[in-house]
Amino acid sequence: MNTFGHLFRLTDFGESHGPAIGGIIDGMPAGIVFDEGLLADDMKRRRPGGHAASPRQEDDDVEILSGIYKGFTTGAPIGFIIRNRDVRPDDYASLRGHYRPNHADYTYAVKYGRFNDPRGGGRSSARQTACRVVAGAFAKMALNKLLPALQIKAGLEQSLENILDAREKGDSIGGSVACLVSGLPAGIGEPVYGKLHARLAEAMMSINAAHGFEYGDGFALASAKGSEVIDEFFKTADGSIQTHTNHSGGIQGGISNGMPINFRVAFKPTPTFPSSIPQGAKPGRHDPCVALRAVPVVEAMAAITILDCFMEARARAL
Amino acid sequence: MNTFGHLFRLTDFGESHGPAIGGIIDGMPAGIVFDEGLLADDMKRRRPGGHAASPRQEDDDVEILSGIYKGFTTGAPIGFIIRNRDVRPDDYASLRGHYRPNHADYTYAVKYGRFNDPRGGGRSSARQTACRVVAGAFAKMALNKLLPALQIKAGLEQSLENILDAREKGDSIGGSVACLVSGLPAGIGEPVYGKLHARLAEAMMSINAAHGFEYGDGFALASAKGSEVIDEFFKTADGSIQTHTNHSGGIQGGISNGMPINFRVAFKPTPTFPSSIPQGAKPGRHDPCVALRAVPVVEAMAAITILDCFMEARARAL
Amino acid sequence: MNTFGHLFRLTDFGESHGPAIGGIIDGMPAGIVFDEGLLADDMKRRRPGGHAASPRQEDDDVEILSGIYKGFTTGAPIGFIIRNRDVRPDDYASLRGHYRPNHADYTYAVKYGRFNDPRGGGRSSARQTACRVVAGAFAKMALNKLLPALQIKAGLEQSLENILDAREKGDSIGGSVACLVSGLPAGIGEPVYGKLHARLAEAMMSINAAHGFEYGDGFALASAKGSEVIDEFFKTADGSIQTHTNHSGGIQGGISNGMPINFRVAFKPTPTFPSSIPQGAKPGRHDPCVALRAVPVVEAMAAITILDCFMEARARAL
Amino acid sequence: MNTFGHLFRLTDFGESHGPAIGGIIDGMPAGIVFDEGLLADDMKRRRPGGHAASPRQEDDDVEILSGIYKGFTTGAPIGFIIRNRDVRPDDYASLRGHYRPNHADYTYAVKYGRFNDPRGGGRSSARQTACRVVAGAFAKMALNKLLPALQIKAGLEQSLENILDAREKGDSIGGSVACLVSGLPAGIGEPVYGKLHARLAEAMMSINAAHGFEYGDGFALASAKGSEVIDEFFKTADGSIQTHTNHSGGIQGGISNGMPINFRVAFKPTPTFPSSIPQGAKPGRHDPCVALRAVPVVEAMAAITILDCFMEARARAL
Repeated sequence: MNTFGHLFRLTDFGESHGPAIGGIIDGMPAGIVFDEGLLADDMKRRRPGGHAASPRQEDDDVEILSGIYKGFTTGAPIGFIIRNRDVRPDDYASLRGHYRPNHADYTYAVKYGRFNDPRGGGRSSARQTACRVVAGAFAKMALNKLLPALQIKAGLEQSLENILDAREKGDSIGGSVACLVSGLPAGIGEPVYGKLHARLAEAMMSINAAHGFEYGDGFALASAKGSEVIDEFFKTADGSIQTHTNHSGGIQGGISNGMPINFRVAFKPTPTFPSSIPQGAKPGRHDPCVALRAVPVVEAMAAITILDCFMEARARAL
Repeated sequence: MNTFGHLFRLTDFGESHGPAIGGIIDGMPAGIVFDEGLLADDMKRRRPGGHAASPRQEDDDVEILSGIYKGFTTGAPIGFIIRNRDVRPDDYASLRGHYRPNHADYTYAVKYGRFNDPRGGGRSSARQTACRVVAGAFAKMALNKLLPALQIKAGLEQSLENILDAREKGDSIGGSVACLVSGLPAGIGEPVYGKLHARLAEAMMSINAAHGFEYGDGFALASAKGSEVIDEFFKTADGSIQTHTNHSGGIQGGISNGMPINFRVAFKPTPTFPSSIPQGAKPGRHDPCVALRAVPVVEAMAAITILDCFMEARARAL
Repeated sequence: MNTFGHLFRLTDFGESHGPAIGGIIDGMPAGIVFDEGLLADDMKRRRPGGHAASPRQEDDDVEILSGIYKGFTTGAPIGFIIRNRDVRPDDYASLRGHYRPNHADYTYAVKYGRFNDPRGGGRSSARQTACRVVAGAFAKMALNKLLPALQIKAGLEQSLENILDAREKGDSIGGSVACLVSGLPAGIGEPVYGKLHARLAEAMMSINAAHGFEYGDGFALASAKGSEVIDEFFKTADGSIQTHTNHSGGIQGGISNGMPINFRVAFKPTPTFPSSIPQGAKPGRHDPCVALRAVPVVEAMAAITILDCFMEARARAL
Repeated sequence: MNTFGHLFRLTDFGESHGPAIGGIIDGMPAGIVFDEGLLADDMKRRRPGGHAASPRQEDDDVEILSGIYKGFTTGAPIGFIIRNRDVRPDDYASLRGHYRPNHADYTYAVKYGRFNDPRGGGRSSARQTACRVVAGAFAKMALNKLLPALQIKAGLEQSLENILDAREKGDSIGGSVACLVSGLPAGIGEPVYGKLHARLAEAMMSINAAHGFEYGDGFALASAKGSEVIDEFFKTADGSIQTHTNHSGGIQGGISNGMPINFRVAFKPTPTFPSSIPQGAKPGRHDPCVALRAVPVVEAMAAITILDCFMEARARAL
């Protein structure tokens, strides 16, 4: 399905080479200042076009169609569209009937038969992530009001040198994105199936090209001894409870413990490269390192997930 | 929330030291043979008591209360309970007011205040996973009928030597579980937010002590070059399409491609150990390697997730 | 599916002639006093056995299995079962293969094939409503804390004379239940698809034998003129806003306006009666007026729905 | 929330006087012919402008933005927008701070505070129903393929004479819409909470101005005797099972029985009329009988609900 989230949620649509992509943000509280600068900045960070990114010029003008009145959110759903302007369907025409390896071409063809829109990967295009960034920006606006101390910062774990090197060779390279969420109070997340890290994992693994998720010490814990990774509690001067170390990544039993939440997401290398294209076919335009552009998307999905979990926690408080 | 799944789903309840745990399996198709042996085997594999496991004797008799008639599922929800028989609440009484490190004690206390049931971790106890295994067994029964070629096999990636060594030293050790799903046809999973691997990630990360998830080449892809991990397609003698390699882990664009699906789940070491317990307090009874008992739980969650995704795919087929 | 509600929800199971029925109440806030008397009273009101009701002796002992600790809710899901004690399957054996008119026998047979449990209507039995009453009692306990002024009262609109007369003649009679909810503050309910009255309609129409729902002036509005049914606003002495009349039934635009909410639910007559039974077959034991026993069920579903909507409203408040 | 449906669902946005309304239709099967004529006809039927309707000229051009490729649905979500062209915000400016009786003005103000968009009722405007009609048209396209024999027909139960009379007097009048669904096979709908009529009730009661829902003999059953409303089964010449009468309205135990489904929805009179407007304020433009325009909306919601329930039934079939 094309909806993410429970109480705060994004539903979106759009293929990379149709008239537009867009979405509906539902569950936005009323009375939040619409921060255009925040939205513009996040969209700019996601946009391709840097020298380490794809040559495609996406003009990501977000047109807000509802839910904002006189500079504030109204509580009504926020509809938005982003027109596709740099559409060149013939780039892809020659690929018809050819399944690009490591793409969704084959699986979409099995699932949807001959009815799938093959242009630019259609619905599987990374362009879809623009909708996530829009919703993430609105989630951040709400969080700025509800949890002013909250900060979400993600960074790429791959060197620019490697990326440029891959690009020069017509190759690509993977990367991971490390994200740190600080300022989240303890008590957010649900036991059992709604664990905060399970919700984050679902969110992150839904991003194009994601292949792994870990939080706290993550996979390293699989070879650690219990005695090595104890996060002992202590009381701070102001009486709050913290831990000396943070092997747990800020989450215990699926619920935030007030320490910074850290997680990492692994992204595969961009799959397209000249040698996989049949004779005479032109390649699409792609990034040498998809993880680079995933950074703001990871932040956006984190913001959406945390706001959603925060709302759920609040619903049942006495 | 305490429900997992959309069309096939498990809702469960129960604390480790209350009268019983149990659950409701909803969405089970009618006419599936109730395979008591399969259920008993899976429950036995999860049960503590082996020499590498906890000394607690859990008598996991599953009492089925509905949804089965004359040996077949009826299509009605399957209610079941498992009585807690080996309850020793005084093991935990001395821990009252003490937050065990790396446990959910503190976060539950923040979330639920003084009303939380502190005995044995309450709802956060690994005993909850018994309900997952019951539901997983029913999912397997349905899959045996719907997808007879499907096989789900998981194995522990940690040596028995390390586990016994940790146990001897009063310590514990982490581990990972590798799972292989073969025989799943192409076309299962949804684009964007319902990606098969996102659903699997959510499922696996909801298991107690899970700290990481990866599929296909996973985190290794973050440092791989695109040219090194291409899964080229080829046509088999019988006309079916396969790939030579399987870096993608059987999933492309979030949808199964017919190749085996493989994923790994990292589990942290069991957190309890003598030195963290206050003077005079008795420790709970715990496994030296929680990943060991997670193996059938991983399989169960995989079965539930795959059946659920299969049902969703079927709902919209022409 | 066998789940009702979003944030506060009941999932239940059980056939009338299996070992037990039961359910799981999820989303209950922590720290609510467990009011055993309230639960017992509501269960007693639903129980068959009065002289205007069915001769079946149902022993509705509710066994609570989780979620309560030292007299308070813990925030964990509340599991409960009710054993079926007065089971006489041979009452129904003779009906095998015969579809009783106005029952679910035929439609269940089509839907589930030969696997359906035919005893006593199986899952379609009115006994299922006991689970609703249990969940409703817990919803009332939470509402007593969260909204102390709230009152939910429902009453039967059918004369005892008519009921006894129908019973004497081996016939049955329909009835409607009128429900009044007072003390609900304005602002509960969601625009568009989550309208409070749409949620109430779904809740009430899910009760066995329900055939109609209306709120405020209901069907009478279909022949009314706009000028006749205006609920003019006025300011009370204390500055609150009320309406002089209440044709709107306390809901405008799907959201409570602070006036009492009133709605009615129509129930068909109990369908079973001697003449529809094949030669030699014994009839089941049934009520002459199913609406009589529906009264506490209507209240229960109202309590569940209102608590759920209240939680949803609170989740998004600033 | 602003989503309706489970497997086939509509999420929509938009205020009557913002730039546009629109929606996303998710769950549409791939390979359905896009029937532009069907969509245009349904939109035309809903459009105001007839002599018995509102003078507002709504130019309901539906712009489809995704999910259609070469005349067929692709399986991807269908995004669409409808621009608001005939916007006259000053009609409503004078109403600021005045709560129109029987409107959502007051309840929205309580729920959303001063942030609500007051123009033309904002999100509560009947213009929102245009999105339902678009989604209903797509549901019908899918049903035409999946269930070719299905027919959904609704009609107004109010005389044109009464409507014109009300209009002439500056008044309005209520009405009801009777809907008949024929050709639906037996077995659609779920027991207990997903009863087909409960789903229909929720759908219909979510339509603006709806105040009542009944199916089969509806409220008349509340005063009927059991012996008077028996739908006896019989076998037809071709071996199919039908009932002689249809007091049950084609649904038994919440599941379709193969007979025609009939239900009625009561709509209140349009609330706006000159006398309720403060001195000097201009009234909005409204229909004398909102039920008239509700006819295609009822059909649309019926189509959406039935397709959704059909998909759910299919998901679990063996």
